[in-house]
Amino acid sequence: MPEEIRAPKGFRFSAVEAGLRKGGGRDVALIVSETPAAAAATFTSNLVKAAPILLSAAHLRRTRGRARAIVANAGNANCATPDGMQVAETTARTLAALLRAKTEQVLVASTGVIGVPLPIEKLTAALPDAVAALKATAWSDAASAILTTDTRAKISWRNCAKASVLGFAKGAGMIQPRMTAPHATMLAFVVTDAKIAPAALQKLVNSAVGRTFNRVSVDGDTSTNDALFVLANGAAGTVSSAALARALEEVMLDLAVAIAADGEGARKLVHIRVTGARHERDAETVARAIANSPLVKTAIAGGDPNWGRILSAAGNAGVPFDPARARVTLQGVPVCRRGAAVDFDEPALGHALSKDRDILVDVDLGRGSGRANFWTCDFTEDYIRINASYRT
Amino acid sequence: MPEEIRAPKGFRFSAVEAGLRKGGGRDVALIVSETPAAAAATFTSNLVKAAPILLSAAHLRRTRGRARAIVANAGNANCATPDGMQVAETTARTLAALLRAKTEQVLVASTGVIGVPLPIEKLTAALPDAVAALKATAWSDAASAILTTDTRAKISWRNCAKASVLGFAKGAGMIQPRMTAPHATMLAFVVTDAKIAPAALQKLVNSAVGRTFNRVSVDGDTSTNDALFVLANGAAGTVSSAALARALEEVMLDLAVAIAADGEGARKLVHIRVTGARHERDAETVARAIANSPLVKTAIAGGDPNWGRILSAAGNAGVPFDPARARVTLQGVPVCRRGAAVDFDEPALGHALSKDRDILVDVDLGRGSGRANFWTCDFTEDYIRINASYRT
Repeated sequence: MPEEIRAPKGFRFSAVEAGLRKGGGRDVALIVSETPAAAAATFTSNLVKAAPILLSAAHLRRTRGRARAIVANAGNANCATPDGMQVAETTARTLAALLRAKTEQVLVASTGVIGVPLPIEKLTAALPDAVAALKATAWSDAASAILTTDTRAKISWRNCAKASVLGFAKGAGMIQPRMTAPHATMLAFVVTDAKIAPAALQKLVNSAVGRTFNRVSVDGDTSTNDALFVLANGAAGTVSSAALARALEEVMLDLAVAIAADGEGARKLVHIRVTGARHERDAETVARAIANSPLVKTAIAGGDPNWGRILSAAGNAGVPFDPARARVTLQGVPVCRRGAAVDFDEPALGHALSKDRDILVDVDLGRGSGRANFWTCDFTEDYIRINASYRT
Repeated sequence: MPEEIRAPKGFRFSAVEAGLRKGGGRDVALIVSETPAAAAATFTSNLVKAAPILLSAAHLRRTRGRARAIVANAGNANCATPDGMQVAETTARTLAALLRAKTEQVLVASTGVIGVPLPIEKLTAALPDAVAALKATAWSDAASAILTTDTRAKISWRNCAKASVLGFAKGAGMIQPRMTAPHATMLAFVVTDAKIAPAALQKLVNSAVGRTFNRVSVDGDTSTNDALFVLANGAAGTVSSAALARALEEVMLDLAVAIAADGEGARKLVHIRVTGARHERDAETVARAIANSPLVKTAIAGGDPNWGRILSAAGNAGVPFDPARARVTLQGVPVCRRGAAVDFDEPALGHALSKDRDILVDVDLGRGSGRANFWTCDFTEDYIRINASYRT
């Protein structure tokens, strides 16, 4: 992030504790735009969708992409409970009344345990304090309040002529966002004071999400609650569309990669680069298969240059290629050429894999010019520990 | 296994140490039929196939499904090395000469590390002793010699009128066999003295493999070396085809479930039963998605009745169903009805999940009459430990 942060004008943020999170701490975040903002979103493609996802999608349809506020909570996913829609609606209505906005101008997002009723009275009781606490500079409080098993807040920004783009996200487990437009318990929020129409904003978001959030995986589980929201309130006026598109995609990529790097139990960020595929889609499919292989991820955790597992995972992707033309390069060291082992200094590479925090896996399929980047993390005993005791 | 074991007539087995396995111990197993046996096989659908897979498939084509012997080794997968085919061919040719058989009557199978050249001279030097040691009763030695990270041998048998069916298998990691006919580092070997033609045998095997080996997963990684071989030498004469089919499928299911139960680091066998799908294929797809969810498997390891993860995994399977009609039952206790939480005694169910070794997950999609069974294991810290240090 090359520049000083310059928060987008006309947005305010806050975070309060509603008592939804076991162990306590702030668990409700607000993002409020002074004026109705152009709003775009992408949501999870999981067939099981949480109530806030369904409600927010409905609100965006009704307003044709205009929103005043987003309310997000951690500690409970508000998913697969009998009264989920009522809870989400009551949340939106209560906040709308406090902001003198329309209910459908409020978007809702939740993350946490699935299948446990969300105590709505706790959430609504916290909203007046949340509104009273709204400040233009409190975005880092909001970014922290939505974390669950994350170890750190994920915040990114870019200046874009007279406007700026600021985003934050959470997510460490149940992470393989495959968001469809406008459909994502990765939660990400991006705000900008650039001026843009809702349809144009949605188009920029759709194009950027495919190469950012949809290119990371922690555990291959796609959540019921994944959501990305982008608000553009126009307070800074119009900027070049290409510049805005670039700033938006850069912020989204920063956040997506930060999610992979902070995956549950992760000690390493793994960047998988597939080249030589028929086309980008094939390259992405192969990269995703490698990223989701527990054997590849445990080898990297163990500092083991076991590239056979990488080649095997590629062979399982369902994408046609000739293994006899494949190359694998690990942390810059060629380890496999024409589908077979090449000599390399194994102890040295093992040492590098153990020591380095950023791991680069290059696979060339030797077939075409299709290429794709994908990010994941290593797979450690801490992942198991965290998830075997998530609710206790 | 209801009956006393009665080894199929006309088969002999042995196991020797060739020095392929780090840490030592027997690592080469032979199965020899006195007469050429009808032979059927299924192999991995991984695009990257080990040399022994390619060679055995070629031999079966050339002989139209006739074989005298199988030689299997642990400690090295003979996959993705420059001289893999030569190694596999030399192995087959050496054993054939010792048995006075044709080279193409010998099938080869390997399991172990990928991408490291197999020291062929060690393997061929051990074959004379292996042939000298052949005995009708040594099947349990053979079953043990092929193990890698397995904690125990997997052996099953059924009597079938005057004939009998005996099988053994290995496999604990890189396990999600998806074998296509005749294509499978799960290795499984089944022998019978029933009389049956090669084509009829292959047909029985194809039908059985879809509901047995292709219905288990440890880690969702499909190996480059998976193989199932079935030999029928006819020494006991003809038996009813239906009885043979049943005995064969029962032995294959025993072995497949034993592989899931002995998955790397596993403490629990998880049986997933999906019902109410449009058809069996959909049910299998949903069951496989649940079986491959690290979040479901870690929850079970932790004794956590976190059924929301089960429903979420089902929603990611790519199979259409209405979540509002879905039911989930865990260890016999209904936990989710019409897609939403139902009241249940959570501490009691948590206690049962922690205590029981066999876990039953029932998911009803509420749509049709399609159903499928699938088996996996829980996901523990030991899986990570085993695979982060596999080669050290």
